[in-house]
Amino acid sequence: MPEDAKLNFTHDEYSQRLQKTRDAMSAKQIDCLVVVDPSNMAWLSGYDGWSFYTHQCVVVRHDAEPVWWGRGIDAAGAIRTCYIDADNIIGYPDHFVQSDERHPMDHLSKILRDLGLDRVAIGVEMENYYFSAAAFRSLQTQLPSAKLVDATALVNWQRLVKSEQELAYMRSAARIVEGMHARIYDIIEPGLVKSDLAAEIFHSGIAGQGEDWGDYPAIMPMLPTGMDATAPHLTWDNSVLAAGDITFFEIAGCHKRYHCPLSRTISLGPPPQKYLDAEKAVLDAMHAGLENARPGKLAEDVAIAFFDTLEKHGFKKDNRTGYSIGLSYPPDWGERTMSLRRGDRTELKQNMTFHFMPALWLDDGGLEITESVVITDSGYERLAEVEQKLLVK
Amino acid sequence: MPEDAKLNFTHDEYSQRLQKTRDAMSAKQIDCLVVVDPSNMAWLSGYDGWSFYTHQCVVVRHDAEPVWWGRGIDAAGAIRTCYIDADNIIGYPDHFVQSDERHPMDHLSKILRDLGLDRVAIGVEMENYYFSAAAFRSLQTQLPSAKLVDATALVNWQRLVKSEQELAYMRSAARIVEGMHARIYDIIEPGLVKSDLAAEIFHSGIAGQGEDWGDYPAIMPMLPTGMDATAPHLTWDNSVLAAGDITFFEIAGCHKRYHCPLSRTISLGPPPQKYLDAEKAVLDAMHAGLENARPGKLAEDVAIAFFDTLEKHGFKKDNRTGYSIGLSYPPDWGERTMSLRRGDRTELKQNMTFHFMPALWLDDGGLEITESVVITDSGYERLAEVEQKLLVK
Repeated sequence: MPEDAKLNFTHDEYSQRLQKTRDAMSAKQIDCLVVVDPSNMAWLSGYDGWSFYTHQCVVVRHDAEPVWWGRGIDAAGAIRTCYIDADNIIGYPDHFVQSDERHPMDHLSKILRDLGLDRVAIGVEMENYYFSAAAFRSLQTQLPSAKLVDATALVNWQRLVKSEQELAYMRSAARIVEGMHARIYDIIEPGLVKSDLAAEIFHSGIAGQGEDWGDYPAIMPMLPTGMDATAPHLTWDNSVLAAGDITFFEIAGCHKRYHCPLSRTISLGPPPQKYLDAEKAVLDAMHAGLENARPGKLAEDVAIAFFDTLEKHGFKKDNRTGYSIGLSYPPDWGERTMSLRRGDRTELKQNMTFHFMPALWLDDGGLEITESVVITDSGYERLAEVEQKLLVK
Repeated sequence: MPEDAKLNFTHDEYSQRLQKTRDAMSAKQIDCLVVVDPSNMAWLSGYDGWSFYTHQCVVVRHDAEPVWWGRGIDAAGAIRTCYIDADNIIGYPDHFVQSDERHPMDHLSKILRDLGLDRVAIGVEMENYYFSAAAFRSLQTQLPSAKLVDATALVNWQRLVKSEQELAYMRSAARIVEGMHARIYDIIEPGLVKSDLAAEIFHSGIAGQGEDWGDYPAIMPMLPTGMDATAPHLTWDNSVLAAGDITFFEIAGCHKRYHCPLSRTISLGPPPQKYLDAEKAVLDAMHAGLENARPGKLAEDVAIAFFDTLEKHGFKKDNRTGYSIGLSYPPDWGERTMSLRRGDRTELKQNMTFHFMPALWLDDGGLEITESVVITDSGYERLAEVEQKLLVK
């Protein structure tokens, strides 16, 4: 290991992660796993850097240290951030970058051949932002004797139960998002320009709280107002807030790439009765859902209790109402494993973490009051403490 | 068109873009183009939102208005931001989202069948962050009678020459990045915590300059110091700046998703002679390169003049030294078409824009002094005016 690599976890923890991954590989008879998801790469090796816009991966085998492979100029970043020995950090030449003549995965195939891995079962993350159709085509063409096996989310599923150190980072992220919401409430008022508000949100989130410095979130802040809040994923512009405006803030604190998402909604002035009704429905339903947030229950139990209670209040909702969270890179702060929805029968276990996301998008605006929680030995704990209501100012 | 869609360009401009795209489709005998790249989607339809973490696309045909297709809850965002008629905005149910039982592209195939497009030549962006291997597999399986054609970057290449309105947005982004660098120089000093500095960079970039409000950049700020700056893509942590530190800032201003990237390097105190030598080499080589930045020259002419001059100064560099810029979404602010490197024989034309990125990563740090330029009728114009030197404070 390079002596000055900056590791966020002990070598023991990285070893345990590797063992869990190898066990999951064995269960699927995978000899070699090509991990391209930046979150999975970081979780396995420590690697951190905004280099995922070019092809890169960590190669996991059963009998040797993982290999970091990526763009040549990024090898220096791997040496700075991974526990992996420099001999196992392999860069490809720059003429492979965004070329229409050659694909970086052609180079990876050569490396795999050199390692004697061209006739084995190779796991690939078929459904991933960072494994394009062309990347797969390259491996198929270059490694005709290998068996390419779908290993989508194989590593993600190993990340479901968090270690104490991971929870500590998520609690730091929780302190950060508490500060962000406090700052929003402090400054929001009619006349404020949305981009200035967004600037303050970023400032608070990145400066963080004391030792809990802020990392960039995997999703940018969303703060739509009024009709724009009928849509869930709009960001901001330079429109001016006015009395009567209702704005939701879907934001996350992030520390060392670990996230604590939390949404709140603020009404400038007394909200219409319709929104008070929606607030009561969401909070009642959320509490009904959270009564099921304990070891032994299933992910869908939380969702079903939520949906049933919401329906009693006259609101029908059919989308996903939460997901597992933790370490992440853009474009998604979810872990892309467990979802809180009907049909997801993942058993809840201590130290799982999820964002319970009971948003309501109405015909003239939106209401988001959400919680990020960790499952304890007998129930759940809210990660961040922000007043759980439709905020009025 | 929904009367209140917020369009950043005239209908005429969107029509011209559509025509250019259809012409390029015709040249490749493509009947129907499935555009998943969020930048291409926005350029063609106006669509904007942080929803690209789920599958979505714009479908372009020769004889009908484009179709926006995406997650059901995001249809409201499409109505808010696209010129497309509500009848042509199609959402898929939420149980397709991040499911291991069904793929959203299965739903798209059904839509394409309904539109009579299951036996034609369908162009797909094989090499794209938002077209996974699994997405391609789904289309192959569901549309066995269609001919799937690689249309990687087909739309991106249409974006190379900018319109006056696009240039206006990029000039707004240039004002923003000028403000960001001014703010950095203003506050940087020994004792400053890097995350606090990053917070100020974000604040300046998002608040923007007057009417030029800031959008989020497609790459987060990178501000590595000392040994960390031997790597090109590290972001920040809470380390404390000290006298003698040399830090580079690779950042962009962004306005309505149009970018102006610009890097500068700051030394806290007099830099070592080695860095002064590197500065002289980079600036000489950059000027040599920019002498070739005019209509009629080729992309590689800029790069070759740069490399040759750099080599005379004793520095050998083999990576890409620039790329086309404009409209972009994470994870890359480049357009992924023209590159400034040997072998790229793209002819430079008026109103092309690129980030000339002559960085040097040394054995104990990095030096980045870059320029974003627009090709004029006879030469080039720097988009942003920031002192072109190794800054010392």
